[in-house]
Amino acid sequence: MKNRRSFLQLSALGVAGAIAKPSFAMEPFEKSTEFPIGFAGYSFAKFDIDKMISMMQRLNVKNLSVKEIHLPLNSTKEAIEVAKKKFVDGGINVYTVGVVYMRSKEAVDQAFEYAKMVGVEMIVGVPNQDLLSYAEAKVKETNIRLAIHNHGPEDKLYPSPKDIYDRIKNFDSRVGLCIDIGHTLRAGVLPEKAVKDYRDRLFDLHVKDVTAMAKDAKVLEIGRGAINYPAFMEALDKINYKGMCSIEYEKDMSDPLVGMAESVGFVKGIMRG
Amino acid sequence: MKNRRSFLQLSALGVAGAIAKPSFAMEPFEKSTEFPIGFAGYSFAKFDIDKMISMMQRLNVKNLSVKEIHLPLNSTKEAIEVAKKKFVDGGINVYTVGVVYMRSKEAVDQAFEYAKMVGVEMIVGVPNQDLLSYAEAKVKETNIRLAIHNHGPEDKLYPSPKDIYDRIKNFDSRVGLCIDIGHTLRAGVLPEKAVKDYRDRLFDLHVKDVTAMAKDAKVLEIGRGAINYPAFMEALDKINYKGMCSIEYEKDMSDPLVGMAESVGFVKGIMRG
Repeated sequence: MKNRRSFLQLSALGVAGAIAKPSFAMEPFEKSTEFPIGFAGYSFAKFDIDKMISMMQRLNVKNLSVKEIHLPLNSTKEAIEVAKKKFVDGGINVYTVGVVYMRSKEAVDQAFEYAKMVGVEMIVGVPNQDLLSYAEAKVKETNIRLAIHNHGPEDKLYPSPKDIYDRIKNFDSRVGLCIDIGHTLRAGVLPEKAVKDYRDRLFDLHVKDVTAMAKDAKVLEIGRGAINYPAFMEALDKINYKGMCSIEYEKDMSDPLVGMAESVGFVKGIMRG
Repeated sequence: MKNRRSFLQLSALGVAGAIAKPSFAMEPFEKSTEFPIGFAGYSFAKFDIDKMISMMQRLNVKNLSVKEIHLPLNSTKEAIEVAKKKFVDGGINVYTVGVVYMRSKEAVDQAFEYAKMVGVEMIVGVPNQDLLSYAEAKVKETNIRLAIHNHGPEDKLYPSPKDIYDRIKNFDSRVGLCIDIGHTLRAGVLPEKAVKDYRDRLFDLHVKDVTAMAKDAKVLEIGRGAINYPAFMEALDKINYKGMCSIEYEKDMSDPLVGMAESVGFVKGIMRG
């Protein structure tokens, strides 16, 4: 009996070992660093909602942060329902709205009302600094999270993730960051460091590439630039990031599909690699 | 003295350890698995040479296996020079020609004459089986290597890499394989196994993806299919592969740029990851 039990225990260990160290052939597509990919709607600024959906379908990317260009902030309930049907029919998951700028209390009210009607649980937004407490109150009231977006060295409000984090770190835990890694690098901060430093408030990511760690760096296809993607992905893995990697592609904005595709491929590849 | 020597030995070990395990931050873009990327010219079958060059420029891929669609096998020396100037001006490195089918001694002669005029050191080709010895003699005569290409289950000559290898393994070492990993998987062979098994004769690769390990599998964007890219890249790294990874993209051949870009991005990403 004891022998049999030992045998079973060893067998169980053997199975556990096989699960813990799967061969590539057995589990080719599972890896802890594969995060869901999305798009920041601004990438499609030059296209209407229908064209955006067809472009995302071709790129096989389903998650979208919808921008007011494609669904205005002052849309009626009916207009929002029409757009939502297009997204559902097109297989697109609208997981957040934004980037929404909020320069008055009315704009904060409108943003949360809009988010509620769109049916998302998060807003990627930029409230003026003196509206942060008001925005926090709206988060508490609606249970819609607010991910504040950094916009680089020339941004008067939030040039780098730290400028957001330091102001909201004692707020309700549903107020956090959407780190734009391109603007972060341009602000002289390594994205792989920023996601670690602000991990407890990291809700969303705008993923892109830029030519250098310099203010005047230019955007380009992901993988061609200065962002250290292996280190960045390693950091996301380490902090057990639970959000999306939403690509914001801002090069060739009138003809972006080719560069978007290279970027999507690169991000998928680096996650798989 | 002994102590000092021990100290030095330990220091040397420490340095070796540091080199073996570099931090991502220190060496963001160096990894042993980054192989040069190219294109198999057939990918551009629906486009002329000028359009092909501009497409490759947009994709930022420089290496090309030129196909006779873009530079006919019976071209005059002058026509070849005109084409070569286009490639040089466009920043394209023609590293091989092919796939060249050789169904007669005259076709073998023509292929090697053509390769010599184009100025490449390798032909990707498919000589009939009864011409293999004749082709080997041409390899010896010209010092132009011959990489024989497998074409999947419906290929009467070389369905899988083994069908080539078994016939050439005792030939001059300049006769080898261009393994097409899509046709390999369709023939029921894992590419990661094939590149290991035939490593000593692996000269070139046609890199792609297919929907399944099945004869009737369809081609699609690299990364979306059934080829286990992490395992494949791991195998190339393990065998210390010295050749190109030439993408052969055969989906949407009239409008391939978007899918090509995704494929290029994925391959770059998986190598970097």
